[in-house]
Amino acid sequence: MSDLQGLAERLRQFVQAREWEEFHTPKNLAMALAGEAGELLAEFQWLTPSESSTVMEDPEAAGRVRGEVADVMLYLVRLADALGIDLIEAAHAKLSESEQRYTVRDYRGSARKAPPLP
Amino acid sequence: MSDLQGLAERLRQFVQAREWEEFHTPKNLAMALAGEAGELLAEFQWLTPSESSTVMEDPEAAGRVRGEVADVMLYLVRLADALGIDLIEAAHAKLSESEQRYTVRDYRGSARKAPPLP
Amino acid sequence: MSDLQGLAERLRQFVQAREWEEFHTPKNLAMALAGEAGELLAEFQWLTPSESSTVMEDPEAAGRVRGEVADVMLYLVRLADALGIDLIEAAHAKLSESEQRYTVRDYRGSARKAPPLP
Amino acid sequence: MSDLQGLAERLRQFVQAREWEEFHTPKNLAMALAGEAGELLAEFQWLTPSESSTVMEDPEAAGRVRGEVADVMLYLVRLADALGIDLIEAAHAKLSESEQRYTVRDYRGSARKAPPLP
Repeated sequence: MSDLQGLAERLRQFVQAREWEEFHTPKNLAMALAGEAGELLAEFQWLTPSESSTVMEDPEAAGRVRGEVADVMLYLVRLADALGIDLIEAAHAKLSESEQRYTVRDYRGSARKAPPLP
Repeated sequence: MSDLQGLAERLRQFVQAREWEEFHTPKNLAMALAGEAGELLAEFQWLTPSESSTVMEDPEAAGRVRGEVADVMLYLVRLADALGIDLIEAAHAKLSESEQRYTVRDYRGSARKAPPLP
Repeated sequence: MSDLQGLAERLRQFVQAREWEEFHTPKNLAMALAGEAGELLAEFQWLTPSESSTVMEDPEAAGRVRGEVADVMLYLVRLADALGIDLIEAAHAKLSESEQRYTVRDYRGSARKAPPLP
Repeated sequence: MSDLQGLAERLRQFVQAREWEEFHTPKNLAMALAGEAGELLAEFQWLTPSESSTVMEDPEAAGRVRGEVADVMLYLVRLADALGIDLIEAAHAKLSESEQRYTVRDYRGSARKAPPLP
């Protein structure tokens, strides 16, 4: 069992033990995921770009950031599980598409300022 | 190397080959992650809860949902890499906290309608 | 002075009195707006659609929802002010576009389930 | 009739003419609002803070930003209308709370770097 499968299984048991399945429709899980992404944003919204690069050096901020990143991860794993999506496979497939669309030739350096990733 | 480490490494190479490191401050990555979470939301916003449960049965919708889930995953892995956060470890730690806060005893079934997970 | 102009002016004074202008770049304001939209989402994420329609009947929930709606409004007014965008004018213009794209003829009733608004 | 009331009324008619009321539960409207906030974020995610301050000088970018700001405004007005919330009144009330919490005395200048607004 991979790390991700282990996490998904532990999440399933967490939800089942509390009989919370009815709340975990994909619609609700997508909302919860976006809500947590918003909380993660809040940790960075007033920081300058370079302050954001050193945010993990402050133990209090690091704890909060780690917690919010964890929340996003938990809901993403849960949602993928509910939808039958293999996260690693889907991510690699999307990255392959991006490699085709944003070729090194056309997008390297200052030649073309393009949105990194998708 | 685990699946997640393999994906993180492939992402690093993707970014380096295009010399896009300057765009990948944690601040920008958090924004990109939230933006993709918003696109994922859009796939579900007009669906009823039960329509959302069967969304993967429609090949077109399934393709879009899988793509948006992949986008969120890619930015999450990239952001965690930039911040030095181990996603699996952080997620398990947060889940342990949630198990303490939302005990099965107090939160099972209809006794307490609580926000599942955090 | 319209209501919106009055609110924008009061916000300007609030920010100036605290010398917070440096934090209010459009980039940061867009992040803050999205963060608050995430908090608003959280108020609805576990509710059924019909529970969401009666959320304002519970005084505690109503207070939280009103507060989050206010937060989104404040950041939207502030961001529009920073960018020189007339919110009412922009909204009407966009609605006119949507009226053209989603004609009553093609989108009324069950004929075409389309994303309402844009 | 104020500007906001006029916009809310035009939105009501837009929705009714297309018989889209069933889609406009507060839950769905909150999701749509957050989704549009995400699209607005995407316009700024790769910009530096100062590039974000001059984004409206590029006609193409300005058009996209104005459109996304309008989308957020439309859903916010629609959601407030569905919930019976007076946007101006709620915003002023929240700002008064923030004035109390973030006093000029304690938060002015570099004395206390606090999250501006709420």
